[in-house]
Amino acid sequence: MKNFLSVNDVENISQLVNEAIELKRSPLKFQSLGKNKRLAIILFNPSLRTRLSTQIAAENLGMNSIVINALTDSWMIEFSDEAVMNQNKIEHIKDAARVLGKYFDIIAVRSFPSLTNRDEDYSELVLNQFKKYCGVPIISLESATRHPLQSFADLITIKENQKTKNPKIVLTWASHIKALPQAVSNSFCEWILKSNLDLSIAHPKGYELGEEFTQGAKIFHNQNEAIADADFIYVKNWSSFNDYGKILSTDSDWMLNEKKLLNAPNAKIMHCLPVRRNLELSDEILDGTRSLVTLQAENRIYSAQIVLKNILENV
Amino acid sequence: MKNFLSVNDVENISQLVNEAIELKRSPLKFQSLGKNKRLAIILFNPSLRTRLSTQIAAENLGMNSIVINALTDSWMIEFSDEAVMNQNKIEHIKDAARVLGKYFDIIAVRSFPSLTNRDEDYSELVLNQFKKYCGVPIISLESATRHPLQSFADLITIKENQKTKNPKIVLTWASHIKALPQAVSNSFCEWILKSNLDLSIAHPKGYELGEEFTQGAKIFHNQNEAIADADFIYVKNWSSFNDYGKILSTDSDWMLNEKKLLNAPNAKIMHCLPVRRNLELSDEILDGTRSLVTLQAENRIYSAQIVLKNILENV
Amino acid sequence: MKNFLSVNDVENISQLVNEAIELKRSPLKFQSLGKNKRLAIILFNPSLRTRLSTQIAAENLGMNSIVINALTDSWMIEFSDEAVMNQNKIEHIKDAARVLGKYFDIIAVRSFPSLTNRDEDYSELVLNQFKKYCGVPIISLESATRHPLQSFADLITIKENQKTKNPKIVLTWASHIKALPQAVSNSFCEWILKSNLDLSIAHPKGYELGEEFTQGAKIFHNQNEAIADADFIYVKNWSSFNDYGKILSTDSDWMLNEKKLLNAPNAKIMHCLPVRRNLELSDEILDGTRSLVTLQAENRIYSAQIVLKNILENV
Repeated sequence: MKNFLSVNDVENISQLVNEAIELKRSPLKFQSLGKNKRLAIILFNPSLRTRLSTQIAAENLGMNSIVINALTDSWMIEFSDEAVMNQNKIEHIKDAARVLGKYFDIIAVRSFPSLTNRDEDYSELVLNQFKKYCGVPIISLESATRHPLQSFADLITIKENQKTKNPKIVLTWASHIKALPQAVSNSFCEWILKSNLDLSIAHPKGYELGEEFTQGAKIFHNQNEAIADADFIYVKNWSSFNDYGKILSTDSDWMLNEKKLLNAPNAKIMHCLPVRRNLELSDEILDGTRSLVTLQAENRIYSAQIVLKNILENV
Repeated sequence: MKNFLSVNDVENISQLVNEAIELKRSPLKFQSLGKNKRLAIILFNPSLRTRLSTQIAAENLGMNSIVINALTDSWMIEFSDEAVMNQNKIEHIKDAARVLGKYFDIIAVRSFPSLTNRDEDYSELVLNQFKKYCGVPIISLESATRHPLQSFADLITIKENQKTKNPKIVLTWASHIKALPQAVSNSFCEWILKSNLDLSIAHPKGYELGEEFTQGAKIFHNQNEAIADADFIYVKNWSSFNDYGKILSTDSDWMLNEKKLLNAPNAKIMHCLPVRRNLELSDEILDGTRSLVTLQAENRIYSAQIVLKNILENV
Repeated sequence: MKNFLSVNDVENISQLVNEAIELKRSPLKFQSLGKNKRLAIILFNPSLRTRLSTQIAAENLGMNSIVINALTDSWMIEFSDEAVMNQNKIEHIKDAARVLGKYFDIIAVRSFPSLTNRDEDYSELVLNQFKKYCGVPIISLESATRHPLQSFADLITIKENQKTKNPKIVLTWASHIKALPQAVSNSFCEWILKSNLDLSIAHPKGYELGEEFTQGAKIFHNQNEAIADADFIYVKNWSSFNDYGKILSTDSDWMLNEKKLLNAPNAKIMHCLPVRRNLELSDEILDGTRSLVTLQAENRIYSAQIVLKNILENV
């Protein structure tokens, strides 16, 4: 693996998942692999789980990591080529990335979408500019359109909990008070479908995700229908892709609770966290035995660690 | 020791103080004890000495520590059970604590009181919710009502400087421009009294601390009377407990200076820092030989280190 | 070396530069020198390159470093002696520095000028108060009037790229939208002139730097004349020293581009970064083979590392 920006950087998903599950048993096994190697964790947006799990993954491999909080370090970056920099942006990505490439062996970047300009967001300008100019491997810590480390951790979690060879997996929209990115949902679909697993997606009309991510999935506008007999139900809000970045529904009926699961008695429930309790998911589910959310978060360590390990082995 | 939230988690104060004084002579003696163990330092309020001394203590034990600055990481936590999370809080303590418990071996938390709702502050909701849900040991880095690592460091400092078996110890209120918590004062009283040491408390009327903390101390409203022949005088502002969170006096006569110490010629002066010079304490005292304030701050390393050591030995 | 506040703390510049160039070949050679030593990196102003290169330098020497971000940690320090602290400053430098001196073996400080009061800025109050009270070695990470680690890295870069024994070095002003400190320019002049190298300075009238820094340099108000046949051209904006902190010119003709370099065909171009592209320097120069800017930034690691190494050897 040279970079990790999406599932397309993975040769064999299933093998990677197995590697992670094995690593989880002895996380310190490769503690000398990252010795004297440095990881930059560059955050253009807030991060907790992602930052911590990546730092811990690096540490488990003996790597040093340094966090760069672009917001609080007031580091405003210009990403457009040929810009005349007479406004508030203090440094161009060309210069920043070239320097970071001299300071670090691997660069991990988090950058959310604007949710105002779809073409710009879906061009993945930030990530691509980093990749173009830094000269060292890049890892996505969630970009405008994808969150591959999350999806990798989700697949590890499914693998650990699946009871049948081809479980029924459902991604269902839930209401939220803020307009959220499509990244987690896009990425989840991509990883599930490329793994040849069975995917159903439920959402109100108008919430269709980009076709490049969902081709092969069954689409439902009726949540009950979609979740019937599901083995795994992933609950997640996202804002509209077609009416880009808009909140089209605040229908609280889309919140998942135990009553709705009467026709999916064995369903395990997933969410990437942070979750809005009693808005996206009920307390009874989150505090019950169906919930895999803490495990998903824990597996973020191992998804990050396997990615770092693979890249380190190729540096 | 399983957790460290107050003096009640300590079995034998005097033994703990002795351990700390011994450790101070060779702080790196237990450098392998914390190997591959991780400490979270979670700050809901600003911190300098507390953060640094805890990081250094962890480092001295070979532990990795990661700071989570809830304010600058814009991490707004919901602490109330059953909340419908449709406001600005992005994550519930239940989910946050459960994940942190998977990421870290020990979790240290700083959370100041609101100073608006006494019952809520004195219920120690934040600390207790962390303890309830994270599943790993918790250390208080100052909570709504107590600052036990400070008090432990204060006791180390007294022990190092006492010339008699039962020194006269005085806690005196001083004026301040901001409404400050009662935590440092509460905690100091608790540790001194549980150590069976002699404690006098001086403050203007209306500044009585909670009785659960001061039972057994002599209370004075005349500072001169209280400090006569004192061996240690701890200077500290706090806001009113009875008229909760209010500033009832800005009387600058409560500032300690050399003239007032004519009837306490041997008194050593203590303060937890940061101190407002020439408001709480005069320059002449802080820059003179009576001052123990730098030593108290230095001893914060060893109080934190002994607490971490004891918890690590029990994990 | 006991402290590193300016070139005056350096005994033999040329020897220091040679040490750095040698260290660059094997940066981990002295990895045990800093074991169990701690460096504080105290930032009163934003920092990226400086913070990162200093952290990496410390790491290369096996030192632990902890960053203290005074801004985001809301740590407002009083630097004036005898202040009555009844305003917004929460701690006096005397108390802060004394404590930090107990917590750390070396203290590195960044503090920019106010650009409103020249006498105060040029008295270097912040740095001098730290030095006076902390009791351990101090390193400047850019102060009100100087940026010695940058200038040291610049000299390393010149040494690595010079083709003649006495290259022609030019410092030229460029336009900017913000009023910037004189620190980088002052310091560059000081280091070049103390190294007995040939220095020309070009700037619009009114932009004269302090004479103590430029004595011995040739001053030009015509940029073309100054840069003719130059080997190294350092481009940098600064605000006026005489009309203190003011922007007197926004003349975009001072931007360096390839056309201007027709009469300096071999010139290598330097800038300390961050650079405003197409305002201070053209894209064609920054993306071409003349540019040394990434190398300068890379050499910041080795300038910091040599300074730390020298101080550690004297602690």
